[in-house]
Amino acid sequence: MFDLVIKNGKVVTADRVFAASVCVKAGKIAAIVEPGTDVQADKTIDAQDNYVFPGAIDSHAHLNDPGYNWREDYSHGTAAAGVGGFTTIVDMPLQNEPALTDGQIFDNKLAHVSPNAYVDYCFWGGLVDYNLGTLHELDDKGCVAFKSFIGPVSPDYVSLSIGQAKEALEILKSAGARAGFHCEDYSIIKWEEARAKRKEKNDWRDFLDSRPVIAELIATQNIISLAKELDAKVHICHVSHPQVAQVIREAQLDGVDVTAETCGHYLAFSDEDVIKNGSLFKCAPPLREAAAIEGMWEYVNNGTLSCIGSDHSPCELSEKSEEAHGIFGAWGGISGIQNTMQVVFSEGVAKRGYCPTILARSLSEGPAKAFGIYGKKGAIEVGFDADIVILDPKREWEITPESLYYVNQISAFVGLKGVGLPVCTLVRGQVVAEDGKLVGRKGFGEFVKKIK
Amino acid sequence: MFDLVIKNGKVVTADRVFAASVCVKAGKIAAIVEPGTDVQADKTIDAQDNYVFPGAIDSHAHLNDPGYNWREDYSHGTAAAGVGGFTTIVDMPLQNEPALTDGQIFDNKLAHVSPNAYVDYCFWGGLVDYNLGTLHELDDKGCVAFKSFIGPVSPDYVSLSIGQAKEALEILKSAGARAGFHCEDYSIIKWEEARAKRKEKNDWRDFLDSRPVIAELIATQNIISLAKELDAKVHICHVSHPQVAQVIREAQLDGVDVTAETCGHYLAFSDEDVIKNGSLFKCAPPLREAAAIEGMWEYVNNGTLSCIGSDHSPCELSEKSEEAHGIFGAWGGISGIQNTMQVVFSEGVAKRGYCPTILARSLSEGPAKAFGIYGKKGAIEVGFDADIVILDPKREWEITPESLYYVNQISAFVGLKGVGLPVCTLVRGQVVAEDGKLVGRKGFGEFVKKIK
Amino acid sequence: MFDLVIKNGKVVTADRVFAASVCVKAGKIAAIVEPGTDVQADKTIDAQDNYVFPGAIDSHAHLNDPGYNWREDYSHGTAAAGVGGFTTIVDMPLQNEPALTDGQIFDNKLAHVSPNAYVDYCFWGGLVDYNLGTLHELDDKGCVAFKSFIGPVSPDYVSLSIGQAKEALEILKSAGARAGFHCEDYSIIKWEEARAKRKEKNDWRDFLDSRPVIAELIATQNIISLAKELDAKVHICHVSHPQVAQVIREAQLDGVDVTAETCGHYLAFSDEDVIKNGSLFKCAPPLREAAAIEGMWEYVNNGTLSCIGSDHSPCELSEKSEEAHGIFGAWGGISGIQNTMQVVFSEGVAKRGYCPTILARSLSEGPAKAFGIYGKKGAIEVGFDADIVILDPKREWEITPESLYYVNQISAFVGLKGVGLPVCTLVRGQVVAEDGKLVGRKGFGEFVKKIK
Amino acid sequence: MFDLVIKNGKVVTADRVFAASVCVKAGKIAAIVEPGTDVQADKTIDAQDNYVFPGAIDSHAHLNDPGYNWREDYSHGTAAAGVGGFTTIVDMPLQNEPALTDGQIFDNKLAHVSPNAYVDYCFWGGLVDYNLGTLHELDDKGCVAFKSFIGPVSPDYVSLSIGQAKEALEILKSAGARAGFHCEDYSIIKWEEARAKRKEKNDWRDFLDSRPVIAELIATQNIISLAKELDAKVHICHVSHPQVAQVIREAQLDGVDVTAETCGHYLAFSDEDVIKNGSLFKCAPPLREAAAIEGMWEYVNNGTLSCIGSDHSPCELSEKSEEAHGIFGAWGGISGIQNTMQVVFSEGVAKRGYCPTILARSLSEGPAKAFGIYGKKGAIEVGFDADIVILDPKREWEITPESLYYVNQISAFVGLKGVGLPVCTLVRGQVVAEDGKLVGRKGFGEFVKKIK
Ligand SMILES: [Zn+2]
Ligand SMILES: [Zn+2]
Ligand SMILES: [Zn+2]
Ligand SMILES: [Zn+2]
Ligand SMILES: [Zn+2]
Ligand SMILES: [Zn+2]
Ligand SMILES: [Zn+2]
Ligand SMILES: [Zn+2]
Repeated sequence: MFDLVIKNGKVVTADRVFAASVCVKAGKIAAIVEPGTDVQADKTIDAQDNYVFPGAIDSHAHLNDPGYNWREDYSHGTAAAGVGGFTTIVDMPLQNEPALTDGQIFDNKLAHVSPNAYVDYCFWGGLVDYNLGTLHELDDKGCVAFKSFIGPVSPDYVSLSIGQAKEALEILKSAGARAGFHCEDYSIIKWEEARAKRKEKNDWRDFLDSRPVIAELIATQNIISLAKELDAKVHICHVSHPQVAQVIREAQLDGVDVTAETCGHYLAFSDEDVIKNGSLFKCAPPLREAAAIEGMWEYVNNGTLSCIGSDHSPCELSEKSEEAHGIFGAWGGISGIQNTMQVVFSEGVAKRGYCPTILARSLSEGPAKAFGIYGKKGAIEVGFDADIVILDPKREWEITPESLYYVNQISAFVGLKGVGLPVCTLVRGQVVAEDGKLVGRKGFGEFVKKIK
Repeated sequence: MFDLVIKNGKVVTADRVFAASVCVKAGKIAAIVEPGTDVQADKTIDAQDNYVFPGAIDSHAHLNDPGYNWREDYSHGTAAAGVGGFTTIVDMPLQNEPALTDGQIFDNKLAHVSPNAYVDYCFWGGLVDYNLGTLHELDDKGCVAFKSFIGPVSPDYVSLSIGQAKEALEILKSAGARAGFHCEDYSIIKWEEARAKRKEKNDWRDFLDSRPVIAELIATQNIISLAKELDAKVHICHVSHPQVAQVIREAQLDGVDVTAETCGHYLAFSDEDVIKNGSLFKCAPPLREAAAIEGMWEYVNNGTLSCIGSDHSPCELSEKSEEAHGIFGAWGGISGIQNTMQVVFSEGVAKRGYCPTILARSLSEGPAKAFGIYGKKGAIEVGFDADIVILDPKREWEITPESLYYVNQISAFVGLKGVGLPVCTLVRGQVVAEDGKLVGRKGFGEFVKKIK
Repeated sequence: MFDLVIKNGKVVTADRVFAASVCVKAGKIAAIVEPGTDVQADKTIDAQDNYVFPGAIDSHAHLNDPGYNWREDYSHGTAAAGVGGFTTIVDMPLQNEPALTDGQIFDNKLAHVSPNAYVDYCFWGGLVDYNLGTLHELDDKGCVAFKSFIGPVSPDYVSLSIGQAKEALEILKSAGARAGFHCEDYSIIKWEEARAKRKEKNDWRDFLDSRPVIAELIATQNIISLAKELDAKVHICHVSHPQVAQVIREAQLDGVDVTAETCGHYLAFSDEDVIKNGSLFKCAPPLREAAAIEGMWEYVNNGTLSCIGSDHSPCELSEKSEEAHGIFGAWGGISGIQNTMQVVFSEGVAKRGYCPTILARSLSEGPAKAFGIYGKKGAIEVGFDADIVILDPKREWEITPESLYYVNQISAFVGLKGVGLPVCTLVRGQVVAEDGKLVGRKGFGEFVKKIK
Repeated sequence: MFDLVIKNGKVVTADRVFAASVCVKAGKIAAIVEPGTDVQADKTIDAQDNYVFPGAIDSHAHLNDPGYNWREDYSHGTAAAGVGGFTTIVDMPLQNEPALTDGQIFDNKLAHVSPNAYVDYCFWGGLVDYNLGTLHELDDKGCVAFKSFIGPVSPDYVSLSIGQAKEALEILKSAGARAGFHCEDYSIIKWEEARAKRKEKNDWRDFLDSRPVIAELIATQNIISLAKELDAKVHICHVSHPQVAQVIREAQLDGVDVTAETCGHYLAFSDEDVIKNGSLFKCAPPLREAAAIEGMWEYVNNGTLSCIGSDHSPCELSEKSEEAHGIFGAWGGISGIQNTMQVVFSEGVAKRGYCPTILARSLSEGPAKAFGIYGKKGAIEVGFDADIVILDPKREWEITPESLYYVNQISAFVGLKGVGLPVCTLVRGQVVAEDGKLVGRKGFGEFVKKIK
């Protein structure tokens, strides 16, 4: 007798799509059974004609909580995540007050956010110049990875020099932990920005030019060189360009333990969108030329980029004001946690013809393995958490502001149209969202530790 | 209500090992359920403390039937396969009378062998210089791949020149079919043999030297070059040396659709065994230096060599006589279909510490994908055939002649000791062998077509 | 007091062009002096406004003498060479009666040709399946390299299998000698030809398709693999395509001692010329697509292809008859020994803008180093033979049949126009040709041994 | 009638060694003539049994003049250079007061040093964050390259960030100029130094560990990435390790215009010398493990490292005091301008068996080509400056303090023994040093501009 059975759907794993019923008991996948089989369950969900995906895992979310709650908070952010198909999010340690850099802060953050989460969540640990001594402590508490910036980011978070990154990687290696990096050589950005500002007037092309691919490439190579030298585990956040992906691929084939992520926006938008629409499409690294998009899809498909994260990085509308802050001062970041899965399906499967398995790999298996939670999360397999997304491949959609569960209902994705929508999200067997509406319970979301 | 449940085992997939019960209905895996779950089934097998592997698939077997039945036949060969854990074998088209080169011969062979098979079987189609016109016909009938030799093999089978291979690959490409090659440059072998024979007396070192790695390397490179040029699918049979595997790996990373196989004997024996024991250890390519064995395991583990076949190539004892035939004339071929799985477990998992998943990948998933039968065969997944091997990791063994189900109870593996033995083999849910004894029914084995 | 001084010219070396006088004494370059310097010499040649090149060396000439003198002979062939700027030719051992395969034949050939040569000459030794025992003897007599075919060539010359090539390379390695190969996989050619002939009617595209780049690529890779395995010296004759050059380049960078040559016709003509003009442009490997020409120039310029030879391969007009012999039967070979240097200058320097040093590298230094005669031949350096070509960069030309010194005044180059012509050729300080006219003395040409 | 003839020597060029007389007129090589030739000259030098090398060019010298003359000055520095065989030195713009960063400073420096030079000299231009606007001006005045530091160096010289280096390379590219970099990632050094200082007590191993190969590797890769992206010319100063050389080699083969230099001390000394002897052997990058030395020689020999400079970086003895300044504070730099050539000959030719041509390539041709003065400097060729070094290959030596012409007679090389010594140095035909003694005239040395 199961708690729940999801019937008649097409189950998607990392390498195939097949008809099966998925049975849930006590929040876990308790059985996968052939369609015809008679199954006794308290509750039945009919997934007729729909795909049954493993729950998506957002490798890169900024929920800004605690500290910057006018931008986002756990209840809004995880609600949006759940509606969009993310059953677990990996929350960033910055844009937090204070940044998550030691065990005490960890405990406080956990206590603060746990009453508010609709879906499960992991924590990226902070990795800054003053917390090399607490990395083991944070790892012990369950941080799944450690986030660092090469070059300045924002006043609340200290970046590492390459030299500091070297010591950090040595320490993390001893814990078996992975470090993730925002890879842009800041000296190039800073200088290009300075060069641009010598001009009388700046436009969005200047912003784009101030963060060239070479800056991303150099920073990525540096991190890879360190990882190779030290035999350490690293993760390259939000890769934006195929040239960078190629460097990562070569390192992977060379045996370096480097995982990498891209984001929904790099797979759907181009620099032309920035030129046309301005600050809503501003992010870092910036959107690239249209041809790069196709290249990025290939690197997702061949597994080089094993994670697609949202880099959900919200703000108030006023912070996006070009008038108030200028091109270089306007907030950089795109809100995408609610729409990533549908965009990846629509752009990747419906439009470009990739197999739906691409989602199971890059949204579930890939992040689960990179962040050490595979086994509990990351696939539709017996014994795994019953984190499941039913997606209707024929449902057409257009993203509207009102549909967004964010604190701030703004996003570069507003206005985008496509086909294929998550229509039911389950976390540990409980329905959290249905048909674009939140139905879950605040506080139901649980903290997920890295599996040791 | 299932037909059968296998309880308490540790299920092994390509990427993990987990506790689950496997339920079978109508010959298929109908459910995979959590250990504690109450399951109703007609029959229960307790796999307590044992591994539950997907049935192994022998990518390379010579059953010699019809035509050379003093060496082997379907009843003996498939009995041995079943006892050893191979639930499907892919039978070679040569050492058949006639060689399997057209649709009529296909029908005759199928009719001839089908009453005698204990486990399921696929056919390699023949690929010789006179049947380029019947390749489509054989593909339509379900041949999973097409076997060719670069350079002479035996009087019953015609080899292809590189030029002919080129046309063959063009034809096979149009059918989406894969060609497999015995890769040794015959001109080198022929000439080295001639050089050796200029000596007064030959010993086993001369035989080994007559088939150097460079011969295998060159032939492999040539096939890969053709495959790359034509965008065709190829399979490299019985890779014997890491240098060759490296060339294949580079091609795979370069996007060439080349799969590759090694054999149990290349993973367990070295040239010293040939020197010491003579013709029983003679095979082609020959056994290599001891250091090569470790390299080969690495290439199995990293997936370059995605198949481990037996290259079961039996003969009468008299055909192995060095006295009667000389070093170069004695039969080359090792009988291994009954012992491959236990040897791979013992040498790979017990002795070298690889994860048991290495067997699920190289004995099941790899061959099933290479030969186009994945989905029906190749994994413990709902909807797949219930081909399952229960393996006791603690069972110690020593291989004896009497234990062998072959027509000829001789093998290089006789005398080998190890730990970890298949104790129950199921084909489509039926127990075919238990504790080293055949319990299946002759004729139960079915022909398996390539999935289109 | 010098015998001769060449004044006012622009001396070209492998890496620069500079004004200097070149002084000759006793057939050698006795001094290189600044333009203004007062030099006493019996004779003065004014090279005002012209380039002074080191004498060109033809790495690949078939003079057919003795044996096939209706096609060419030493007096005609070396006369043409001298008029065209080749001061040394390396003559092939085949299309000789008998082929140059042992010391006795060597002595006979030398005696036979020495009274007739206008320029200096080296011998390629034969390398066939029956003369592995005489390679050391031929090397001792001074053969600069040994020529072999992978795959059949013509009735008078036996090709080697890869296996035989392996033994040959082992022997040649012990002598420090280099083997040169005609690299086309004959099995591909043979089979493609057979496929073409299945058609009702053949045209020149069929011929071109019958010798695809993949055939050249595979044969080249095989030779390189052997050379790498054995640490032997090899030379790839008449490379026709950049893809093949790239494979050679990678091997060179990997440390394999492989030198390579292309020919004038691959740098000037394309497959379209064959289609348009038929058998006069037939050669093997065949002319390639126009885009390949540009690629070939780059590989000459970067030194991968360090030799440009003529592959002068003449015949009677009747042997070129498509009517009499058909497309596949008509003689393959292009007569080019008289025009190679002017074509390389015109196409490379005048038309494509390469520095004149490209000629000093690929026509002099490159072949001299590859064939072991550098130090005596190959550069304008004190102590070297005074082999010099004065070339007028402004002289326009059109090649006419009457201008050709060949036994058979036919050539693919007839009708070609260009600019830049050798106007004076000196061998060991003696003027051999002037303004397109032979002025040398028959028998003056000397045999040049490999320097040990 | 020549001014001078150097007879009976063995002339060394980049690719061969041959007997010839070298004739000089008006400071230039006016003729190279065969040994026996009768030559009329005012003066004759007999080089019997000795090598006649092209004058060495020091790609990297810090003469500290004007500004730091207690360390070195032009008269002492160029005297030592001449005695040691350097006929041209390329002087660094830092450790100058002021650093050479604009045209006015250039003029002042030139006026200041020109009365004091014994040998010819070029200027490295400064490349700092405040002089991007004067790079063209410096290039026009004849600077042969521009020197920059990635990461802090000393208070008198500002380093560039990678971002600034990017703009600098764009500007230099438009001038066709080359930028040279001290490549060590300073953030690693700074942090490793800080880590070391956390210890109670530091020893020389701490210093060595504070500047690991990875720091050099990363900085080098970054510069190469910029050069590749921008198609700019760069030079990597003082490469210390084969791993770094390999990265450079790959870039060169990939078509990046990157030249590179190593120094005499990296070819003769190891980290053990630092451990044993302390601060006299302190330099940056530091001396590496003994095995690295052999690797470095191979990269010199294969041309990857086309320059061997001295990085002559002198100081007062007190500045080397470990007691006064500590391990990290003691002056880093080795005085080597007087001994580089003899050390390279002794260690490379006499001890390791490289051909003497290795000196002609790495001490003359290589730097002349990298710094754009080839044609005037860099080889024994007609029309080149008569910069010549006669070296006695049998002369044994031991370096003593008294023999050094430096302002400060201290050096890591003191005490080293070897064989093969420059016995006569000529600059533009004038003898500057003989038998280890200065005989030239102060002020004779001329400034050499880059050839445009
Ligand atoms: Zn970021
Ligand atoms: Zn972010
Ligand atoms: Zn075989
Ligand atoms: Zn076989
Ligand atoms: Zn040829
Ligand atoms: Zn030829
Ligand atoms: Zn430096
Ligand atoms: Zn320096």
